[in-house]
Amino acid sequence: MKNKIILDCDPGHDDAIAMMLAYGNPNIDLLAVTTVVGNQTLEKVSRNALAVAEIAKIKGIPFAKGADRPLIREIEVAPSIHGDSGLDGPILPTPSQSFSEKHAVQLIIDLIMSHPEKTITLVPTGGLTNIALAARLEPRIIDRVKQVVLMGGGYHVGNWSAVAEFNIKIDPEAAHIVFNAGWKVVMVGLDLTHQALATPEIVKRIAALDTKPAQFVVELLEFFGKMYKQSQGFNYPPVHDPCAVAYVIDPTIIETKQVPVNIELTGTHTLGMTVADFRYPPKPCNTYVATKLDHKRFWDLVIEAIRNLN
Amino acid sequence: MKNKIILDCDPGHDDAIAMMLAYGNPNIDLLAVTTVVGNQTLEKVSRNALAVAEIAKIKGIPFAKGADRPLIREIEVAPSIHGDSGLDGPILPTPSQSFSEKHAVQLIIDLIMSHPEKTITLVPTGGLTNIALAARLEPRIIDRVKQVVLMGGGYHVGNWSAVAEFNIKIDPEAAHIVFNAGWKVVMVGLDLTHQALATPEIVKRIAALDTKPAQFVVELLEFFGKMYKQSQGFNYPPVHDPCAVAYVIDPTIIETKQVPVNIELTGTHTLGMTVADFRYPPKPCNTYVATKLDHKRFWDLVIEAIRNLN
Amino acid sequence: MKNKIILDCDPGHDDAIAMMLAYGNPNIDLLAVTTVVGNQTLEKVSRNALAVAEIAKIKGIPFAKGADRPLIREIEVAPSIHGDSGLDGPILPTPSQSFSEKHAVQLIIDLIMSHPEKTITLVPTGGLTNIALAARLEPRIIDRVKQVVLMGGGYHVGNWSAVAEFNIKIDPEAAHIVFNAGWKVVMVGLDLTHQALATPEIVKRIAALDTKPAQFVVELLEFFGKMYKQSQGFNYPPVHDPCAVAYVIDPTIIETKQVPVNIELTGTHTLGMTVADFRYPPKPCNTYVATKLDHKRFWDLVIEAIRNLN
Amino acid sequence: MKNKIILDCDPGHDDAIAMMLAYGNPNIDLLAVTTVVGNQTLEKVSRNALAVAEIAKIKGIPFAKGADRPLIREIEVAPSIHGDSGLDGPILPTPSQSFSEKHAVQLIIDLIMSHPEKTITLVPTGGLTNIALAARLEPRIIDRVKQVVLMGGGYHVGNWSAVAEFNIKIDPEAAHIVFNAGWKVVMVGLDLTHQALATPEIVKRIAALDTKPAQFVVELLEFFGKMYKQSQGFNYPPVHDPCAVAYVIDPTIIETKQVPVNIELTGTHTLGMTVADFRYPPKPCNTYVATKLDHKRFWDLVIEAIRNLN
Repeated sequence: MKNKIILDCDPGHDDAIAMMLAYGNPNIDLLAVTTVVGNQTLEKVSRNALAVAEIAKIKGIPFAKGADRPLIREIEVAPSIHGDSGLDGPILPTPSQSFSEKHAVQLIIDLIMSHPEKTITLVPTGGLTNIALAARLEPRIIDRVKQVVLMGGGYHVGNWSAVAEFNIKIDPEAAHIVFNAGWKVVMVGLDLTHQALATPEIVKRIAALDTKPAQFVVELLEFFGKMYKQSQGFNYPPVHDPCAVAYVIDPTIIETKQVPVNIELTGTHTLGMTVADFRYPPKPCNTYVATKLDHKRFWDLVIEAIRNLN
Repeated sequence: MKNKIILDCDPGHDDAIAMMLAYGNPNIDLLAVTTVVGNQTLEKVSRNALAVAEIAKIKGIPFAKGADRPLIREIEVAPSIHGDSGLDGPILPTPSQSFSEKHAVQLIIDLIMSHPEKTITLVPTGGLTNIALAARLEPRIIDRVKQVVLMGGGYHVGNWSAVAEFNIKIDPEAAHIVFNAGWKVVMVGLDLTHQALATPEIVKRIAALDTKPAQFVVELLEFFGKMYKQSQGFNYPPVHDPCAVAYVIDPTIIETKQVPVNIELTGTHTLGMTVADFRYPPKPCNTYVATKLDHKRFWDLVIEAIRNLN
Repeated sequence: MKNKIILDCDPGHDDAIAMMLAYGNPNIDLLAVTTVVGNQTLEKVSRNALAVAEIAKIKGIPFAKGADRPLIREIEVAPSIHGDSGLDGPILPTPSQSFSEKHAVQLIIDLIMSHPEKTITLVPTGGLTNIALAARLEPRIIDRVKQVVLMGGGYHVGNWSAVAEFNIKIDPEAAHIVFNAGWKVVMVGLDLTHQALATPEIVKRIAALDTKPAQFVVELLEFFGKMYKQSQGFNYPPVHDPCAVAYVIDPTIIETKQVPVNIELTGTHTLGMTVADFRYPPKPCNTYVATKLDHKRFWDLVIEAIRNLN
Repeated sequence: MKNKIILDCDPGHDDAIAMMLAYGNPNIDLLAVTTVVGNQTLEKVSRNALAVAEIAKIKGIPFAKGADRPLIREIEVAPSIHGDSGLDGPILPTPSQSFSEKHAVQLIIDLIMSHPEKTITLVPTGGLTNIALAARLEPRIIDRVKQVVLMGGGYHVGNWSAVAEFNIKIDPEAAHIVFNAGWKVVMVGLDLTHQALATPEIVKRIAALDTKPAQFVVELLEFFGKMYKQSQGFNYPPVHDPCAVAYVIDPTIIETKQVPVNIELTGTHTLGMTVADFRYPPKPCNTYVATKLDHKRFWDLVIEAIRNLN
């Protein structure tokens, strides 16, 4: 049976690839794509989502726009990584689809309430504002969702501060709500995604597909790689968001560890940190952190999905 | 022209009287009553709202249930003031009305979006969870609302901690959202409402109305007075929530001062404090704090409204 | 019997007058003057202390320099109130005395340990860094001190933020140590000292003394008044620090209320607030806050002391 | 030339071994041992220090008692690791030496001020209260000290909370002072010291020395190992404190990385965390964190020192 997911994202270079992996992979049933302020403003990331849909020929599912700002904090975007458009690099096509009338939060709620219990996995790859609002607006979704597999955080690595990751730091209160809601949360954080490097070999394999979506991905990775080199000193860019989708497709690709995770909301130097407690003895909890990626199998999945898009 | 209001409340003894004042006063057009967790659980305060509607013969408007918990914090209720039911004292009638299918947050949004701009005043008399969720879910309401006149906070007085008031302290993040949204906020806090004492003379005047609603109010005030005496040392109970409604009816009954107000979210001893800045020189801001009540005219309004209910 | 005090100060216009009141009043035995960074740098306020000693002919007691920075926070000074020198206005004489070899903290400890128990009152009128360091370095002083009567804080008034006063805000951790040490603390805060206005009548009475110290005070008050007018909108300047000394001389001049006081160390908008808990029922505590000043008797004391200086 | 050090400690099993390493190693000139509340109360750890001196025949240097409580926080001790005495396991001898009249803080200041500049290394292996007080009481020591090599913290490991280490967490404000003072700080934290395991082979080698101090160490390690197994799940106990001394003896035994370190003072889940910033590009700073231990050479040093004690 296919894994039903809702992809809540802020494209974003790696979000774009996550969309392609989700739509191109035969084991995923992508129910909807919802957008949220993050890598860029809501307007920009929403337009980007439709542009990616155009390239990847993603059809027949609703796209819905969500929160245009975090719950409590002011808006913070990431042009140093994703450029001014949020998806700099390739030329973006004009979208032919349009957005659902529904707000992303309402769409998420309606999909979860209208599907059988424990069948939908939420896959947020941006800030957690939409998911948090949905959980507060309709608390019954918490028990109905199968799991939340999110890209965000890092138990030993930060990128938006010494110890906090962008998706969590831009809306830590939303993250607090999501991590403490009670559903199963799999945190695919920087510890894992910094292993998902798009090495030259990987880029070459994607280029060799010689399709329009493949060419688009190559151009994305080129820009993404340049920005990551420049701002964070990476030799090859870490492709974060598809890792969360990959975990849903095949959990054996990613090792996880069950540990309590708290979101730091008041720290001066640690705001937005995902504080994982690895101490002995293990404590009961519903949070899992991703620790180790099977690099080859991950990229095989991604490349296969891109191939399928054509 | 009548003042259109949405009363968002958690009845609650003084919320009950606020409902009666709003419905019984000829200058208020009560569009809806929405409920929110606060003085008691959402289920209890919602049932109480319908019970009050029964007593006061409030008809023809929607009642909707809202948030069953604060945004970030755990639920805190106030049985030491309102008893186990949230409305202890009188025998509560079985409601004949039922709740809207809509969530309170959605009802608030729909009413504001469907009415002309700047015609609706929001009157929250409980925690600000519903209002905050509405502002985040549909940011356009912020410019469309006329004003928010809320009961909560206190610039020199606290009741749920040394310096924080119950409605703000139970959901300080929601309060932060509401106070910083950009709309005009009139904070009717403890500094004001501790002047709205139900003295024996007042109770006698209400009793003299000799109607069923009046008798209900007398029984509410009896219980409320006993609890306030016991837990906070008041000789007569301060009847908070109707003050916010009274301000909408006739702003000349309450003096206000325009000062910046911030909500403290990280203080160890000050969490949930409404930090008002009275320092010279005055700073531009959209927040007003209530300072002085015309006790006689306030109670005249309340008693007249109760009379009108029969 | 005279009241033995150690005056720990950061002159500072009102500190200067406090020194004069302490030395000129027959009921005070001024054991030492110690200095601490505050209104200006340690070097400046220390030089000012000696300059005031020169004017007021304060002799035969040790002067000692203390902390040159707060415990945890960076240095903050108050030129907007006290000018660049910390004592702008009059021409300052060249000091003829010099400082003790001892550090202020060591001098405070040695005086307390060498005098009989419960005979010395500490009178800090600046940040509480020295007193806090002394309490941590020699904890036995806590039981030996008679009381700490400090100028600082405010339960309903702030001047260095909406709700925090300068002396507490510049070293809130030191204040935390002092307020929680266990000794009796009388907080003479802004609520009280804003009553100690140097009205034109007062200034005229001081001028009429027609002595060098009186002339010095008049020039101090002239500058102080101008600054207070300009930066805080006062018609007449509040002369804070002598109030603490006046309380030691005659506690009937100042009404106090026994309430718990906590120092806020983590608040975003409330850092350094002296959080007083006036709620019912009263709680046992060793902190008192000054509430009401007998303006006439206070100024009588000050003027009489200035007269005695000549 | 020998390395002059002042060992500021709270014995403590590993502190005891640190004392022995410092006194037994020919390249260290141990100027003084000062004590501070930490693993147990000041009285207990001070007595333990003298007991260790008895066993190890440490003579001719001053021992001085320091702070009996942290700067701001309440006292927290660690009986779960060190037992009720702070040095449970072996029978402790009655000390024949006594303490200096001087307070530890004064002794530290006097030693630094009376020795040539940049010749003394401070080696704190407990909470940083004494060092912080010394830096505030006599700021000139900051430029005169050669370096501070401390056991404490952890950039990826916590033991007293999910992300904070005991020595830092019990007095985070003192740690803040020490890490931000401006002198060179080498943080030998849990990341490093969890590599310093006393394996059965190590214990066997120590036992083979067949001396009284060696026997004492074996008994310490037996108890320490049992407690670490039980409370933290370690197979063999990590012997933290001697690592800091070993770094002073031979810095090539421990790899370090120069990264900014901040102490978290306001975090809900991260209080007392040593927040190290490993991000690119490297930032100028005066803090170094220890990353990798040469296990064999470390233990060779320790064992050689114990042999020398007899």
